[in-house]
Parts: sequence; C-alpha cells; structure tokens
Amino acid sequence: MSPHITNALWMEQAQQWIPKLYEQKIFPKQLVRSVSDVHAFQGWRIEPVAPVEAMYEQVLRKGDEITLDFGQHLVGYVTLSLLNVRSNADAPLRLKLTFGEMPCEIGEDFATYEGWLSRSWLQDEIVNVDVLPGTITLDRRYAFRYLKLEVLETSIRYDLQLKDVFCTTVTSASMAAVAPLPASTDQELVQLDQISIHTLRDCMQTVFEDGPKRDRRLWIGDLRLQALVNYETFGRNDLVKRCLYLFAGSRLEGGQVGACLYEKPQPYVDDIYLYDYSLFFITTLWDYYEATKDRDTLEALWPVAREQMDIALKRLDARGIVQDDETWYCFLDWHEQLNKQAGAQAVLIYGMKRGLCIARELGLTEHEQQIQAQIRLAEEAALRFLWDEEQGFFISGEQRQVSWASQVWMILAEVVDVEVARALLQRLKGYNEAIPMNTPYMMHHYVEALLQCGQKEDALEQIRTYWGGMIKDGADTFWELYNPEDKTYSPYGSNLINSYCHAWSCTPSYFIRRHFAVTDS
Amino acid sequence: MSPHITNALWMEQAQQWIPKLYEQKIFPKQLVRSVSDVHAFQGWRIEPVAPVEAMYEQVLRKGDEITLDFGQHLVGYVTLSLLNVRSNADAPLRLKLTFGEMPCEIGEDFATYEGWLSRSWLQDEIVNVDVLPGTITLDRRYAFRYLKLEVLETSIRYDLQLKDVFCTTVTSASMAAVAPLPASTDQELVQLDQISIHTLRDCMQTVFEDGPKRDRRLWIGDLRLQALVNYETFGRNDLVKRCLYLFAGSRLEGGQVGACLYEKPQPYVDDIYLYDYSLFFITTLWDYYEATKDRDTLEALWPVAREQMDIALKRLDARGIVQDDETWYCFLDWHEQLNKQAGAQAVLIYGMKRGLCIARELGLTEHEQQIQAQIRLAEEAALRFLWDEEQGFFISGEQRQVSWASQVWMILAEVVDVEVARALLQRLKGYNEAIPMNTPYMMHHYVEALLQCGQKEDALEQIRTYWGGMIKDGADTFWELYNPEDKTYSPYGSNLINSYCHAWSCTPSYFIRRHFAVTDS
Repeated sequence: MSPHITNALWMEQAQQWIPKLYEQKIFPKQLVRSVSDVHAFQGWRIEPVAPVEAMYEQVLRKGDEITLDFGQHLVGYVTLSLLNVRSNADAPLRLKLTFGEMPCEIGEDFATYEGWLSRSWLQDEIVNVDVLPGTITLDRRYAFRYLKLEVLETSIRYDLQLKDVFCTTVTSASMAAVAPLPASTDQELVQLDQISIHTLRDCMQTVFEDGPKRDRRLWIGDLRLQALVNYETFGRNDLVKRCLYLFAGSRLEGGQVGACLYEKPQPYVDDIYLYDYSLFFITTLWDYYEATKDRDTLEALWPVAREQMDIALKRLDARGIVQDDETWYCFLDWHEQLNKQAGAQAVLIYGMKRGLCIARELGLTEHEQQIQAQIRLAEEAALRFLWDEEQGFFISGEQRQVSWASQVWMILAEVVDVEVARALLQRLKGYNEAIPMNTPYMMHHYVEALLQCGQKEDALEQIRTYWGGMIKDGADTFWELYNPEDKTYSPYGSNLINSYCHAWSCTPSYFIRRHFAVTDS
Repeated sequence: MSPHITNALWMEQAQQWIPKLYEQKIFPKQLVRSVSDVHAFQGWRIEPVAPVEAMYEQVLRKGDEITLDFGQHLVGYVTLSLLNVRSNADAPLRLKLTFGEMPCEIGEDFATYEGWLSRSWLQDEIVNVDVLPGTITLDRRYAFRYLKLEVLETSIRYDLQLKDVFCTTVTSASMAAVAPLPASTDQELVQLDQISIHTLRDCMQTVFEDGPKRDRRLWIGDLRLQALVNYETFGRNDLVKRCLYLFAGSRLEGGQVGACLYEKPQPYVDDIYLYDYSLFFITTLWDYYEATKDRDTLEALWPVAREQMDIALKRLDARGIVQDDETWYCFLDWHEQLNKQAGAQAVLIYGMKRGLCIARELGLTEHEQQIQAQIRLAEEAALRFLWDEEQGFFISGEQRQVSWASQVWMILAEVVDVEVARALLQRLKGYNEAIPMNTPYMMHHYVEALLQCGQKEDALEQIRTYWGGMIKDGADTFWELYNPEDKTYSPYGSNLINSYCHAWSCTPSYFIRRHFAVTDS
C-alpha cells in the first residue's frame, strides 16, 4: 500500500454527503431450476418449476435443494424465516446458499471455477442456524435474481420449511424521481431505458459502484458514465459531488487521481493509476458543473483537474505523443491485444478540451491560453505521427495497430472534423483486421462518436442491436461484458465472475433521453 | 411436536431469573498442529509449532492454514482482527474456521463423518469478509480449545495477517465464588477439582447445559448432578431454581417432566420422556431445598414432584415391577445391550424416598404415609422378582440380565442394606459377564454407591483412575464419554461428535469437596 495524498477536509465533506439508502422488501416470484442447454446464453437456461406458493408448503429434507427466482435483479439483504417440521430441531440447521445474477451461477459448480479473479466474488455461503423456528438476516449484501438453497444438514428428527423469504433491497436512487418517457416512445426503447435505469439503480449505493456483485468499488471510468445517466434520470447530483470529492480527497502519491477508490473501512484510493481514467476527473467535473451549475465545487476541485493535465502531459515523448509501454497504463477497453497509445493520446486531448471549458468558465485566462496551446500541440502530434494517410486510420504503438478504440476516441476528441470522422467510421466497418470492441463501455463511446458525426440512426440501431441483444439473451440489468460473437467472453478467465449489473453499461437511458425519446414540443 | 402443558406464571418467573453472563477475553497461547499418532488418544496428538507471537507476524497466503491453541477449553464468541498485506484487499477474504474441543476435531476431515447425529454439531464455518482491514466477531457461540484457520481465498493482490484474535468467554459461573481447597489437598485432587469446575463453568450458561458444544439443552439428568457440584462450588442456586421452574412450567401432555428442554426461541419441553429422568425432578427439588432451604420453591413445585411419582407408579405391572419394553423409555447409561427394568425400578424407589422427605418436610402426613406404602411395595417387588438369590445379583428384563447399572441403582435406592451392598459390589467386580458402565454419568453413581457402602478409599481410587485417566488422556474439561477400554467409543457412530465438556462428568468436585478434601477442623 503506497502512501497517498489525503485532503482531510474534502474527505470529511464527502462523508457528510453519504446518502441515506432507500429500502424495499422484495419477495420471490417462482420456483425455478437452471438447466444446461447448449443453445441457451452461456449454456444455461432457467426453467419454471412451481409457483411461489409451493415454496411455503414444500418440506425440505437433508439433501434437498430449491431455487427461488425473485423476478428481477436485486441488491440487498436476505432474510429467511425458517421452520422445523416433523419434530423439534434438536441440532443446528446447515444450509448452503448460492446467489446468482445469471443462470450460469445457479447451474455451474463453483468448485470448477478457474478464473484469475478471486473465487471469493462468487456469492455462496454456508450458514449454520442454531435456533429453529427462527429468522435470520444474512450480514452480507448480495446482488442476485436467483437464490439456490441447499439443505446440507437437518437431523434425523426434523425437516425444514420456509415460512418467509425476502430481500430488503438498498439503493440511493429513487425510482419516483425518474420522469416517464413520452407516450410515443416505442416499446423497445422503453425497455432499454428501464433496464438501464435498473442497472444504475442497483449500482447506486453510498457511492456509484461499478458493479454491486463485483467489485463494488468506485471507478472513475464508470462514475463518468453513471453521472451522465443520473443527470437524465435520478438526479442524485449530491452523490456525484460526493464521489468527485472522494477522488480529489484521496489521491496517489504523485497527485494523480486514482482509477478507483475503496469506500471501507474508510475511503481511500487504490494503487491503480490509469492514464485515461485520471483525465476523466476533468471530464466528470465539467459534466457535473454543466448539470448542476455548482460553481463552488468547480472552483474547489479545479486545481486537481488541472494537475491531472499536467501529470498526463509529462508522459508525452519528444514528438508530443503519449509514451507507450507494456504495462496496464491505460484502460480504454478489455482486449488483450489492444494497444493503448493512440487512445490515450485522444483521451488526453478530449480531457484537455473539458479543462479548457472549465478554465474559460472560471475566467482563468492564463490557464485557458496554456491549455489551448497544449491541445494544439497534442492534436498536431496525433495527426502527424498517429494518422496513417495510406490506410486512412489512426494507428497505435510500434506495431501501428488499427483498432476501433483508437478511431472512436480520436473522433470523440475532435482531432478530425465531422466529415473525415464519418468516412473513418464507414471505412472501419469494412476493415476486419481492426481490433474490435469488447465491452458496453467501449460501445458507449462508439455510439457517442456516431452521434457526434450526426449519424443518429446508426447510433440508435447500434443501441437496439447491442444492448437489445443483451435483453434477448436474458438481461434484467446490463452486463459488464457482452461480445455477441463470443457469449462466454470474460477477461477474467470465467464468465461466472463477470458482473451482470454493471455501471458502465447503463448508458442507453442517457442516449434515449437526450436524443431519441424527446417530446416534439 | 406434541402438545405440552404450560404453566405461564412459572415460565415467566423462570425467564426473570435468566442470569447475566460473565465475560472474559482469552487470547491464544501458541501455534500448534494436530498430528496423526496411533499411540495418542483417539489417534491424534497436538504438537507445538511456534510461540503465539509468530501468529501476529506470519503472512498467510491462499491455501495456508494455522491452528491456534487457546490453552484451555473455552465457550464463547470469537473475534478476528484481520489485516491485508502486500496490497489492498480488492476481493473478499474467504476463510474456513474449524473449532475443536479435541485434537481429533482439528486432525480429521469432517467430510468423513458418518455418525447418526447431525454433522451440523461439528463446529466449522466458512466466512466471507468483505472489508479489510477489518474486525469480525462471529455470531455463533463455540466450545473449543483449538481453532484451525484455513485461508480459502484472498486475491492475487493481497495476503492476510492476523492482527488480533481472541475469544470472549461466557458463563454464569463466577470463579471468584469457589472456595479454595485446603492447602493439604494433594495435587491430583486439586487438578481433578479444577477440571471439574472448568467443566461446570463452561456448561453454566443461561441454563445448566449438558454440553456447550452438543447439544446445549437442559437435561434433567445432567441438571441433577450439576446442581450438586454447584452447591459445593459456584453457589448459583438461583440458576438451579430457574431450571426447576422451567421443567415444571413446560411439561409433556400427560404431566410428565420431560427429559430435556430447549431454551430458544422460547423455553419449551422436548418430546422425550425418560422414566428415570422424570423421577429426578423430585430428587433435584429435594437436593435444592437441602442446599437453600427455599421453602417457597419446595411448596410451589411439590405438586409436580408428586405427579411424577404417580405417573411412574402407573408403569408397574401386577407384580409391582416396572414394565419393560424395547423402546428408549429409561436412560441409566449409554449401552446398547443394557436392559433398563431393574434400574428403572431402583430409580423409582430412590425418587420416592426423596419424595417422602419432601412430604415429611412440608408436614403432609397423608402423602407421607401413601408414599411410604408405595416404597415398601416397590422394594418388596424388587427383592422378590429382580433379586437372583442364586447368582447374588439383581437381574433385569426377560433375559435376566446382570449389569453394573442395576446393582448400583439398587444400592443407591437402599433396597439392600450396606453389608449386602458391599458384598454385591465385591462380587460384581469379579463377574465379567455383567454389562459394564460406559459414561462418567454412570461412573458417578458407582462412586456414590461405594461411598454409601462406606468404601471411601475405593471411591477415591475410582475417581483417580477414571477421571484421572481422562486427564492423562488430555482432558481440559471432563468428557461425555470415556471408556478406558475403547477410547474411540461413541454411542453416536463417531467420536468426533462426542461432547468433551459435559455436565454429567463434573462431579469429582462434589465428591472431593464433600468427602475428600475437608479440613480437619
């Protein structure tokens, strides 16, 4: 654990803005089972077994198991009211509980897990209950739709019956705050919007978490997109402010805004620095100001934003290009082959342009001029060294790699004008060698680029196809990872550990509400 | 669950007498391991690994395990203060904790358990910890000396260090209340006394439990002996009173005092009726009165005591002998072959003799005369039908079985006079076909019988040999079961599930303090 820079005042302020969580009791809807099926998404399909009433009548003996379907993705605390039947409970009850966001988590044996992320993210518990009849509420918060319950031990004298089971959900988002879409909105968009909102709701806790199952941290890449959706839906702008102060208040030794923060036991920055993520502090601050006009925060946190530019600029080589290396210095997307150089250069320019807006808004003329000059140099360097005129693509790294990420980010950074950008995207679609996109996060930026190029219909089509594809594949909330060509894709070595309610995937609502479902008036 | 008779007032009174528990923080003393060794008790031996300081320095990686030795048998709640080292804890920690009263519980794999009592009594937990650094206190109470900790999962980024581990012990017994033995007492007796006291202390909670590991219920057979030791040591007579009111306040449908009670969620009698145990209500009430002179309780509960005699007498056949059958109608001892008829007859007489004392004390002349007459009939029947003049033994059941239990109980019931009793015990020692004793519970009664015959030295020798044998075999507290001829003996199909701190085994203190370590003055 490296030393950090802490601003005690900001951390204290951020802690004062911890939101109260809304709670709701949700009951299971039916009994189901997860069935292996090669034609189903990830090889598992949920099959109804019985209406929920059967659950309250069923006698569970040692070795029995049932799976409850709560009908929707939930984040919360589970309460089980347990009854011994046949005779007295003369020994503790031993249960195994497995919580699944997806059918695969209920179907597959966690013992087979071989991913490189800790198996501890898989949500299962062995619970010993000393007193029956009794009601227990598990200490830990789970993210799930399905709950598999296996009776490991009763005794020769008694069996088990479930008297009551419910989940007390928690979120800092109020569904009541969300404006309904115009009545004219088509059903597919309504559904895409609804699932986006549920995704954001379940990630909105005392910070904007990336995923409530995994890894529950506050990541700035996710925060930026969550904030954009939040402005259009829940309007919990105080929570964005809290997160900005947390990122500003706990930074890496060199002053960098970290890629993510832990909230407990006390908020502190993780040791991960990512080039693009640090720059998103500027972007997120500017977006926040645009949504709220909270000038106090803009002024207070401007020095941190400015410092991120200065730090990022130090990575430029003599040509004015971001130095590349073999480490994980920049995120952009999950793809093992993806080279980050061009994307990093683009995010630098993109970030500085938001920095410029802030300097202008705050009337800091000197800063404004400095930033303007730096943007010009970075853009010129990008066009000179990263644009391959012959291929008509931005290239990245020594291998002159062409990727979707590089093109999309150069367009978002407005390094080329709209006409060039439009042609570039057209060309990209026909170029199969380009490193593709793997996450809804990268797909968001592609849609944003299409919109920037005025290709509104293509953008909408992309949303319908990609996020709509997740819905067809069974999404209740949008997923961290979705590759329609490889549905078990995981950067972690197992799709069991993927997050199936993930912040960065909730942006359809932002697009729909800003561009596609606006009233004519 | 059969209907019960409940006396709400008595139950309410009993609940008002729930004692406050004394707490004490106990820290581990050393790091050890359990080593398989055919020459060791039950095949397992504890071997020191390192001084306890090493625990606080050791870095535990995924797959590592350590075993903490707390130096004594404890009952309480465990707190673990956990620290991530190397880097931040970016995933939950998953630990397996195994609590053992004995080396076998640490050494053997619980997955191999095949006993008929529920495996849920074996004390192990899988614990997922979301926040590190962090301190957790496990919800459940454990009975243990050894704690094995296995690190199932960390993450690729962090390892684990134990910052602090302790057990907050609980008991309603105050060690300060125990008078020291006279200075002249020999060390072996001091040790036997100490271990008895620890045994009772760990079983004394909000009721007198039979065993704090298993099954934690209030059994009247155990209560009777615990109360006797308690009068000589802790003097928590209010707890005896609470237990008497509980047994009187929640009875079986026919008015029988049940063999045991559950304390939670609300105290209620279990469906088990045992002929001898119901009669021990009378005995325990009389012993309580002798120790406390609490006439109110004696008067209040006398009708229940009297009813137990009436119920017991209904089981006599035309000859005046307890009807035998194949069911588990009477306890006496754990032995599969043991026939209960003669023992039951003897306990009836023994119980009625205490009932007689109560009636006399309360001045209930009519009752006194009735009971006296019934005692006479039961004794005459016993001598006529259960005494085998030829063999010189009491016989039991159709097979005319000779057992230690039958002889001992007939002596305790004073069916024969001291001279006959003494000769009987002498003969018994030479008769190898007699069904032997299997538990410290039965051994207690044998020692009592020896004392009743004036064979004080034999009694002491028996205590030194039998309970002293447990000490030699590693007892910190006395065990539920101990057969020096078969050290893995268990009536439950596995010695893993035996209780190693068991109420009915704590009586050496009673004998020592009443008979063997009295000051000359």
